[in-house]
Amino acid sequence: MLRSTMTVLAKSSTELRSESVRSLYDQLTARLKDLNHLNGISGLLQWDQEVMMPSKAAASRADQLSTLAGVSHEMQTSSTLGSLLEELEQRQDLSAELNPYELANIRLSRKTYKEETLLPVELVKANAALNSKSVGAWVEARKESDFSKFAPFLQDQVNILRQKVAYKMKGGVCEEARKINEKARASLGLTETDECYKGYYQALLNDYEPGFKDDRLQVLFSDLKQNLVPLIAKIKAKNFQHDNSYIEGDFDVKKQTEFSHRISKQIGFDTDAGRLDVSTHPFTGGAHPTDVRMTTRYTINNFQEGITGTIHETGHSLYEQGRNKEFVDTPVSQALSLGVHESQSLLWERMVALSKPFWTYTLPLLKEQFPDREDLQAVTPEQYYNAFNRVEPGFIRIEADEVTYPMHVILRYEIEKALVEGDIQVADVPALWNAKMKEYLGLEVTEDRIGCLQDTHWAVGLIGYFPTYTLGSIYAVQIFATAKAAIPNLDENLAKGEFPVLKEWLNKNVHEQGSLRESGDDLIFDLTGKHLDSSLYVKYLTDKYTAIYDL
Amino acid sequence: MLRSTMTVLAKSSTELRSESVRSLYDQLTARLKDLNHLNGISGLLQWDQEVMMPSKAAASRADQLSTLAGVSHEMQTSSTLGSLLEELEQRQDLSAELNPYELANIRLSRKTYKEETLLPVELVKANAALNSKSVGAWVEARKESDFSKFAPFLQDQVNILRQKVAYKMKGGVCEEARKINEKARASLGLTETDECYKGYYQALLNDYEPGFKDDRLQVLFSDLKQNLVPLIAKIKAKNFQHDNSYIEGDFDVKKQTEFSHRISKQIGFDTDAGRLDVSTHPFTGGAHPTDVRMTTRYTINNFQEGITGTIHETGHSLYEQGRNKEFVDTPVSQALSLGVHESQSLLWERMVALSKPFWTYTLPLLKEQFPDREDLQAVTPEQYYNAFNRVEPGFIRIEADEVTYPMHVILRYEIEKALVEGDIQVADVPALWNAKMKEYLGLEVTEDRIGCLQDTHWAVGLIGYFPTYTLGSIYAVQIFATAKAAIPNLDENLAKGEFPVLKEWLNKNVHEQGSLRESGDDLIFDLTGKHLDSSLYVKYLTDKYTAIYDL
Repeated sequence: MLRSTMTVLAKSSTELRSESVRSLYDQLTARLKDLNHLNGISGLLQWDQEVMMPSKAAASRADQLSTLAGVSHEMQTSSTLGSLLEELEQRQDLSAELNPYELANIRLSRKTYKEETLLPVELVKANAALNSKSVGAWVEARKESDFSKFAPFLQDQVNILRQKVAYKMKGGVCEEARKINEKARASLGLTETDECYKGYYQALLNDYEPGFKDDRLQVLFSDLKQNLVPLIAKIKAKNFQHDNSYIEGDFDVKKQTEFSHRISKQIGFDTDAGRLDVSTHPFTGGAHPTDVRMTTRYTINNFQEGITGTIHETGHSLYEQGRNKEFVDTPVSQALSLGVHESQSLLWERMVALSKPFWTYTLPLLKEQFPDREDLQAVTPEQYYNAFNRVEPGFIRIEADEVTYPMHVILRYEIEKALVEGDIQVADVPALWNAKMKEYLGLEVTEDRIGCLQDTHWAVGLIGYFPTYTLGSIYAVQIFATAKAAIPNLDENLAKGEFPVLKEWLNKNVHEQGSLRESGDDLIFDLTGKHLDSSLYVKYLTDKYTAIYDL
Repeated sequence: MLRSTMTVLAKSSTELRSESVRSLYDQLTARLKDLNHLNGISGLLQWDQEVMMPSKAAASRADQLSTLAGVSHEMQTSSTLGSLLEELEQRQDLSAELNPYELANIRLSRKTYKEETLLPVELVKANAALNSKSVGAWVEARKESDFSKFAPFLQDQVNILRQKVAYKMKGGVCEEARKINEKARASLGLTETDECYKGYYQALLNDYEPGFKDDRLQVLFSDLKQNLVPLIAKIKAKNFQHDNSYIEGDFDVKKQTEFSHRISKQIGFDTDAGRLDVSTHPFTGGAHPTDVRMTTRYTINNFQEGITGTIHETGHSLYEQGRNKEFVDTPVSQALSLGVHESQSLLWERMVALSKPFWTYTLPLLKEQFPDREDLQAVTPEQYYNAFNRVEPGFIRIEADEVTYPMHVILRYEIEKALVEGDIQVADVPALWNAKMKEYLGLEVTEDRIGCLQDTHWAVGLIGYFPTYTLGSIYAVQIFATAKAAIPNLDENLAKGEFPVLKEWLNKNVHEQGSLRESGDDLIFDLTGKHLDSSLYVKYLTDKYTAIYDL
């Protein structure tokens, strides 16, 4: 079963010049599809590694992934692909010949080609080597709660990220960051060779949230901070919690599993095009929109964790399964950004599964599933709703509720931005972290293990990633509000377990849109008529928790 | 995570000439290892397809496998690999510089390189296209029990196999077949361009059983036929069967599963380096010796099927897990042949699990596992042994016992050899099949569905494959006899469930030997001091079943 696309020799630019736009585009997509198949394989191998793989296979799996990455990189940076993209760039008649999805494929593949070709192989290798050492150091440091053991690796990560950004700026793939940097240099009277990292965060952010501007992020986050810090303080001062004994205690894992499968299927997860399994850290991955692999985890004495994890990942999975079928296997069918992806998981987790209509429908099923839990039988949907919506400031981001979660993200955003742009030093991180934790959530961090060492992101160079969690929740509120306005009686539908109406609206308005637009903000604007706006999110949280806590 | 081996430009032959043998060998193995990683990935994808994959992913998985096959083929036929092999072939000092395993790696990779490069791409594509159409036609034909619907596809398979053999003969990768062909032409007074397919079966056989001679196969098979046909007739004439009610009836699948996992682990399957799951057709595959994936299947009312399947696949898995660690990821560590692989599954399935010592140990565990089966509690190991060793001629190969199984294989061997070499026509197959079934097993085939259409092999061009099943059983008997002579009190060990002593002997004497030798017969000779010999096998079957059936 040979594929011809790879064996064809690169055509000369003269030969390409005589071909039609359509022919060039078809040759391009044949290559993009092969690349997509390899990416799908990599996704499957990674799922298997987390869910199925026996422990001794770790080294051989790493070898396989590394060889595969090498093959992908070869294909991604091949001169054949480069010549096709170059020739297409020359053509004046592109938009006459191609539709907007096809144009987006050219835009996206050109960007990836540039990004993959502009980094020197040595830097990529150094990066991979650093990551594996750095993760080990972080694990050790966290175990001993000793930031100093991780600090040198964090410094190396910052250095390598700065080098990457510098190459990208030179290569012309992050214009927004370059502009910010030039402006800063000018205002500070610095030359091109002087050290100045202003704008670097913008570049890193765009690795995860393409097209989104850092200064808009600052506006959104500062509004959230201004409104949520007092809201959290008010809830804390109330010193009251609803009874949540009926989400705790003994919940048989097998029965939880059945229940999770039932609910995710009812929400719209297509089990003929995906699987739900168990892993230590829940995630959604897989090989293709027809082959989505999601995981959750169950705790015997906490019902909320398993079902919430399942519904969150179901949101991600619906996005994946709902991707554009006409442009399958090409870049335009891929998710627009991490933030938009997160909006789909959070929309189902928070807007739906933390709502009263959802529990009106679901609670009777739950009582049926756990007939032995006598305490459950008399509970009302309102009580279950209150139990699920408990707000309690804590040290750990991944355990946070929807009100305090943004503060965890904003704290990280402020620190990582300052770090990359040179406003603070690595050694400043723990003290700054603890001060902000005190200011935003009123908590005293006594150990770095539950402070600045809790997350793995920085250990693998994921700086610019954290904001997408909270962008996701802002997107989610705004998208859900639009859906509610567009779908008559949505709440009534949800209260009857009629989820497809919402799923289909999201399929059409979000999932099938893929990467057609250049940023999540553009998608939101086209969808809602407004730019992304934190005020709706603040109002949602304030109204909801004022009622729950009787503030 | 870039790999450097693939990005390196091909060196000129002058440059290579100045390098040491060791350096050339190291460059070769770096490439062989990358190829092996891709093969491992393909193995994992195929396991996933049978065991985990959701149904709608069939098309995307086919795309992924096809792209991967293309990448492997590119790598396998690259000029870099070709130049390295060519340069190594020139060197006079190879055996002074390299050890026998390393020399085997050169021999094996040269052979694969030749085989992969000598077929024209068009033929490979035509073959893949034929296979997918042919399988569909076979499924239809079997459903309707109508051979004529499959016949044209079988003819196409024969034609394409003949073309492949002709290319291989020209390319010098099947010398034995070429010699037979030349001799036949000479004796028939034919020129080089006359049609003559003598020796073609030899070439096909060697795709699965390298180095094994077809004329030796004929001798072995004719001896088996001569001895087993009367043995089978004698058993049939006896018209007696031992009670096997205690392997039938209700065996809870969950409990069977636990039992299978327990036994396979006790035999020596390393669950940290592999998995046991369920699939429609049991198989052993996976990604690496550290990542072996085997499957079985359970039937609620037949205990024998599940446990036998598990033990058979455990035998295959022990071979895979036991492969040479020093030469991991290179060709010499791979299994020598399909027949030798099958010998390992059959040794455990028949020599061990169909023996009295095994049931002496296992029956008490079985009684414990199924305490509700009162009928089991009084059964003796002897009775269980008799029940498991029932002989009953039947139409279906995969359901056959060890006495009648060889006749199914010999029948197919005789037909497929005659077909490929032009002694019969496709249209002759059903009548010939039915006549042989009558002659060897005394059965009247009334429907092609349970006759010549029962197996999928011919539909995907697997001609030359069937003999390896029976070669496997002859190897198994001879290897087990040698193990028994080498291991003091082996039967006593097995009767106490002490399986590691046998497993470790096989690890050392078979598994770690890999593809060091050029044929299974060479391995047998080095191991036992004798060539492969059907008389031991005949004696084993005759003695065993004379006792069981009191002949």
